Amino acid sequence: MTSPVRLALLGCGTVGSDVVRLLHEQSADLAARIGAPLEIAGIAVRRLGRDRGDLPVDPALFTTDPLGLVKRDDVDVVVEVVGGIEPARTWLVEALRAGKSVVTANKALLAEDGATLHDAAAEGGADLYYEASVAGAIPLLRPLRESLHGDRINRVTGIVNGTTNFILSAMDVTGAGFAEALEEATELGYAEADPTADVEGFDAAAKAAILASLAFHTRVTAADVHREGITEVTAADVASAKAMGCTIKLLCIAARGADAAGRETVSVRVHPAMIPLTHPLAGVGDAFNAVFVEAEAAGQLMFYGRGAGGAPTASAVLGDVVAVARNRLAGVHAASESAYADLPVRPMGEALTRYHVSLDVADRPGVLEAVAGVFARHEVSIATVRQGPGGGGSDAELVIVTHVAPDAALAATVRELRGLDIVRSVTSVLRVEGGA
Amino acid sequence: MTSPVRLALLGCGTVGSDVVRLLHEQSADLAARIGAPLEIAGIAVRRLGRDRGDLPVDPALFTTDPLGLVKRDDVDVVVEVVGGIEPARTWLVEALRAGKSVVTANKALLAEDGATLHDAAAEGGADLYYEASVAGAIPLLRPLRESLHGDRINRVTGIVNGTTNFILSAMDVTGAGFAEALEEATELGYAEADPTADVEGFDAAAKAAILASLAFHTRVTAADVHREGITEVTAADVASAKAMGCTIKLLCIAARGADAAGRETVSVRVHPAMIPLTHPLAGVGDAFNAVFVEAEAAGQLMFYGRGAGGAPTASAVLGDVVAVARNRLAGVHAASESAYADLPVRPMGEALTRYHVSLDVADRPGVLEAVAGVFARHEVSIATVRQGPGGGGSDAELVIVTHVAPDAALAATVRELRGLDIVRSVTSVLRVEGGA
Repeated sequence: MTSPVRLALLGCGTVGSDVVRLLHEQSADLAARIGAPLEIAGIAVRRLGRDRGDLPVDPALFTTDPLGLVKRDDVDVVVEVVGGIEPARTWLVEALRAGKSVVTANKALLAEDGATLHDAAAEGGADLYYEASVAGAIPLLRPLRESLHGDRINRVTGIVNGTTNFILSAMDVTGAGFAEALEEATELGYAEADPTADVEGFDAAAKAAILASLAFHTRVTAADVHREGITEVTAADVASAKAMGCTIKLLCIAARGADAAGRETVSVRVHPAMIPLTHPLAGVGDAFNAVFVEAEAAGQLMFYGRGAGGAPTASAVLGDVVAVARNRLAGVHAASESAYADLPVRPMGEALTRYHVSLDVADRPGVLEAVAGVFARHEVSIATVRQGPGGGGSDAELVIVTHVAPDAALAATVRELRGLDIVRSVTSVLRVEGGA
Repeated sequence: MTSPVRLALLGCGTVGSDVVRLLHEQSADLAARIGAPLEIAGIAVRRLGRDRGDLPVDPALFTTDPLGLVKRDDVDVVVEVVGGIEPARTWLVEALRAGKSVVTANKALLAEDGATLHDAAAEGGADLYYEASVAGAIPLLRPLRESLHGDRINRVTGIVNGTTNFILSAMDVTGAGFAEALEEATELGYAEADPTADVEGFDAAAKAAILASLAFHTRVTAADVHREGITEVTAADVASAKAMGCTIKLLCIAARGADAAGRETVSVRVHPAMIPLTHPLAGVGDAFNAVFVEAEAAGQLMFYGRGAGGAPTASAVLGDVVAVARNRLAGVHAASESAYADLPVRPMGEALTRYHVSLDVADRPGVLEAVAGVFARHEVSIATVRQGPGGGGSDAELVIVTHVAPDAALAATVRELRGLDIVRSVTSVLRVEGGA
């Protein structure tokens, strides 16, 4: 058999430990699939002394010098599962420029500064694979980067954050408010002690940038992504959604569009939205992830699975390791970054969205006329209005769903409604996605 | 820009026409993604005179000599969308041996004699891609062949035939019998005039063989697949499934197992089965396809989309064309067939399955004891029994769900039940899949 392909593993937390375990358990299969055995050249960790259970690995392989490890001549492939921008970027750029292939799960780095990594990979003639960075074990990189390359993707809609999906699913099932559902998620280990990255949508926004870049052959960064979290989703919103035959999900949406001049654009956003229960994404419960793709010829596709966790993420990492190891043995590289389309990213205000708005209004003649007038002034077309009894005796409830309009016009409409005398309160405002 | 990559298209029916259309509409994008333009060198058809509508292609490109076209020096890639074993095999072997890459949608050929194609590809140093052969536009080839290569797949369960899924969905929704639902499917264009290949499970069995080969790194042919169609699924079966909180799907199942000596095996089968409504595959309605994968580390994954139709299949074909064209320009080849595991395929009788059996029995003491005795004699363990009033006054109904047992033992149990005096009739026998 050929001489081994040697890996430097940067990071040995939950994912790193599972990578080590799988490398050990599947070593014979991996060697057969690659055509050469995989060997760990070293594992960079922050502290040497930490108890790592019964990890099947020689303790002498641990080092606290990641850069030194990356630079070693006997390292062929660098696997990074540390996360964060720096020092990970420095390590990976060093590896790629030296022609060492990189497999990384680092969504934050890819979303903030993927360009630097892609450029370094091109410079060094090395492979950069990052399947584990979006939606854990769900294969998305190759489907988007290869399988659909003969097609034209129009829209990607994803549930890519398990924590928020768990919380929203719990709110939907039990009627609980956000705070209560978050508490349950924390107790069960689905939310971290500081849940900000998840519940404020930062994690989903990073993944949205990566998905949009792949789908639209355009460099999209996290800063391009409009981001709203789920902390303001209320039990009333959830009830409103149910009454409409919908459920609320935190969606990442990357859509092709056109600006006023007819030039192609993309818009990329993360926010909670109502989707009909009949939509394939509506059934994605608990901490599962799913990505729904609409392509010109392929039609609707969905990819579903576990988006996080040590073993699923390690599976994605190892799939990439097999690919780059094979490429290395064959003396070839994967196709490099495809960003030829270079579409402008449209600001959120210009994205076309639909709103669902519930209002508590005074129960007297002329109210609907006044409310409808506000929508009309902003050139927002109303799809349906439902009028029902309100909370108090002199109140009525108005539930309005619009047709698509520029998001800025919809937001301005809601602002004006809030100022209207006859509107007691705006009880729920949610975007609506996923069809009629 | 580099000189063009030239395609020979074999077949110009529904899929072939959509390939031509997409090549035309997306030519700029395809060229950018590949790094060279794609050109059609020729299109082999059976009859030259046929009206091909407004196909955007020079009529001079049509030929009735496919083998001559394949052999031409100016052909780089051969795209085959004719189907059937011969003469397709002869053309593709000729192309592959001559070092021309092949993209094919031919599931029958791959399932019956994929080995010949893979061997010819290895011999000629050419690429063989066949994403379109299973589940149309749903990316499965790369996920199974690459993304999950660092993992161990335990089971693949798929709905891979749109016609039968449409028929079973209709039976589930309307309560219609098979014949009536087939008629509707034929009227709506979901079933062909001769529906045998679909309703008898031949189409699904071919796809099962291809999926099993990829998932288990083992050559599995259509002859290895146990096959039962849906023609004997009755309205009573559908009602029985509903009463159990299940729905009936034609499933292809490829599962890892072990024989009596503990050696690893695979079993591959296609048959109708009950699955719980809570299973992700239960919601796959109409003519959609989906493939559910269970892997050691990745956990549960599902891939969903349109399994047939001209445009979705053409999307898959073109994704492969982009890949092989890129490989060609880079002077490289994809990893060849991976069949190293070479697991023995276990006969159906040894596969572990669960049965749901509904019986009309005489309503008198001792009946359950007698029935339970039959299961016990065949060493089949009963999971649940439900006893209810039967059709007539002196009848009762027994609904039994077993634990897993060798399929042969379950089949023998049902045979013996049919011969029992106290059993008036066996009203429904169905395998149960997808969890408890």
